[in-house]
Amino acid sequence: MDGSPAGAELLTTTRAFRRRLDLARPVAHQDLIDCLDVAVHAPSGTNRQPWRFLVVEDSDTKQQIAEYYRKGFAAYLSARTPRPDQLGDLASGRYLAAHLHEVPALVVVCSLGRPPANASALHLASFFGSIYPAVWNLMLALHSRGLGSTMTTAHLAYEREIAELLGIPFERVTQVAMLPVAHLLPGTTAPGPRRIPAAEVTMWNSWSEQ
Amino acid sequence: MDGSPAGAELLTTTRAFRRRLDLARPVAHQDLIDCLDVAVHAPSGTNRQPWRFLVVEDSDTKQQIAEYYRKGFAAYLSARTPRPDQLGDLASGRYLAAHLHEVPALVVVCSLGRPPANASALHLASFFGSIYPAVWNLMLALHSRGLGSTMTTAHLAYEREIAELLGIPFERVTQVAMLPVAHLLPGTTAPGPRRIPAAEVTMWNSWSEQ
Repeated sequence: MDGSPAGAELLTTTRAFRRRLDLARPVAHQDLIDCLDVAVHAPSGTNRQPWRFLVVEDSDTKQQIAEYYRKGFAAYLSARTPRPDQLGDLASGRYLAAHLHEVPALVVVCSLGRPPANASALHLASFFGSIYPAVWNLMLALHSRGLGSTMTTAHLAYEREIAELLGIPFERVTQVAMLPVAHLLPGTTAPGPRRIPAAEVTMWNSWSEQ
Repeated sequence: MDGSPAGAELLTTTRAFRRRLDLARPVAHQDLIDCLDVAVHAPSGTNRQPWRFLVVEDSDTKQQIAEYYRKGFAAYLSARTPRPDQLGDLASGRYLAAHLHEVPALVVVCSLGRPPANASALHLASFFGSIYPAVWNLMLALHSRGLGSTMTTAHLAYEREIAELLGIPFERVTQVAMLPVAHLLPGTTAPGPRRIPAAEVTMWNSWSEQ
């Protein structure tokens, strides 16, 4: 963005990093904590800070999570016919699924509570609107330090099994995303992702079909 | 944050602005579009970009939205006993509710689709995880340009009524948040919000109660 104030560039260049990850280089705990300390500055309803972060580095545990992830990803692939513009993302998605257990750190983002089956729109907005800003703030903070991540949800078809594996109390804690985190390979560029211009998805004073 | 790369400061200093808003100064459409063009760089599942932004500037419409908002906010207040550390936020929340119709622009953020009543965890994560990152990216972009906002949901108890008012097709479009947007008053500082340190909400390899 031309003439944008400090900080805005990070907001437009942070994309899903699935393939340019350095699988051989560990991620220091302090780097993760520094980024998580940025992440928690995201807003949450009544500042209740519902986030809990479970960082998985143990090889066997990562392997088991990766197996659930690959099953979820396969189901996702078989349920859809990709648009031509999605083929590149799908190829990198396949790469990530195949190598997930090799990623140095898997950050399982959890939120305290679990919305009831017939939660109201207000309840759902309050619950999910209090956690996904922190997830995105984490991705931004990671990228600002040369770490790559992407928000994944394919494993959530097996949320209960993964909760059991990790000891997460399923009835009162919801997993909302998993972020594979690694240092970006040298020379990784971050072109802004392809987006429809805002003017085409913005309306004034009343709804009008685009 | 000491030694943080460019951009990270914005991530820790963007807070809910409810009271330091310049209610007399209009917000230019181009400023809003520029910020929305940043917002849409947030990730969404399969890059489907489900966001639609409805900017309300019309006085009568803002007045009607504000009435629903005040009813929702009153219900929220009566349902809870605030913690002592929340009294400041509640006072600024009351100020915002009283003046909502005076805020130059109300950005109603919508997402295409509506989760079914018994949506799976995967479905909910995919739906809400594809929209709230854009909401937070918008708040960050606004702040980077001297504009203040806060994510509000209190009006969503009346989502159907507001959909009717604005012509939003309720059955296939979900309102997820409303952001009152205004220029920040001169001299507004942005101290980082109070947060529990990340180290206290982070676990390694398996769940452990804090």
